[in-house]
Amino acid sequence: MTGEDETFLRRAIALSRERMAAGDGGPFGAVVVRDGRVLAEGANAVTTANDPTAHAEITAIRRACQAVGSFSLAGATIYTSCEPCPMCLGAIYWARLARIVYANDRADAAAIGFDDAFLYREIPLPPARRAIPTERMLAGEARAVFAAWAAKPDRIPY
Amino acid sequence: MTGEDETFLRRAIALSRERMAAGDGGPFGAVVVRDGRVLAEGANAVTTANDPTAHAEITAIRRACQAVGSFSLAGATIYTSCEPCPMCLGAIYWARLARIVYANDRADAAAIGFDDAFLYREIPLPPARRAIPTERMLAGEARAVFAAWAAKPDRIPY
Repeated sequence: MTGEDETFLRRAIALSRERMAAGDGGPFGAVVVRDGRVLAEGANAVTTANDPTAHAEITAIRRACQAVGSFSLAGATIYTSCEPCPMCLGAIYWARLARIVYANDRADAAAIGFDDAFLYREIPLPPARRAIPTERMLAGEARAVFAAWAAKPDRIPY
Repeated sequence: MTGEDETFLRRAIALSRERMAAGDGGPFGAVVVRDGRVLAEGANAVTTANDPTAHAEITAIRRACQAVGSFSLAGATIYTSCEPCPMCLGAIYWARLARIVYANDRADAAAIGFDDAFLYREIPLPPARRAIPTERMLAGEARAVFAAWAAKPDRIPY
């Protein structure tokens, strides 16, 4: 743990406490940092924004991308007051973040009523064995669109 | 497969083609439906919105929540042109969606260059074995904030 890591993770924890106390949502905060500079901060706002995706990490990632004008945060670190849930972990991969530093973990989250540990058990299951009924249909029709993407000369990979 | 399922999934596939052709982003579309009524539609806009979380499902879920004024979409079905990636699957659980209907799958997505299958392999791994370096620190400081949440009399569970 470097002094910089401690400073930025403490900031994420402070955000989790401040925004929870202000009534924004659950007790979660996150900070995205690159080259020693804060690109963006975020806190949970699920219940006030009426947005189930408004977790601290997603909010910080979206703001950081707006700040740098790119869908990639390559080389950046995310400091988060709690281990990312699978949704946020997926977002961290898609954003090409280089490193994750966290404090509370999924068991701590489960102990205060959040579904993180449940989601970590559900997501690796085959779709047919998950709690949410899931069906596949019209595969041939959809695959034709993927073929069109593969053949699109001006596509932007991400 | 009911006629209604076919209609809404075809709409998601049509969105995937239309918005890809318009240059919004990757070939992905989604529709959220409750009681036979479309609450919202979404399409991938990662590269134009500079938002790595702007997948079709996340976009449709966020819009549907705004449309109904709630962070819960309990009882609703999401129709998506491709099997949700782990980020979007997490969002589907957090939004309390009741059912998922999809067309392309993670292998189809991998075949045209998207990381869905890779993410499904990464997310169940212990943090120390994943491709993104991950460290835990300051657990005691953060746990005190969770204790404050558990003791908060006016907290809104989600």
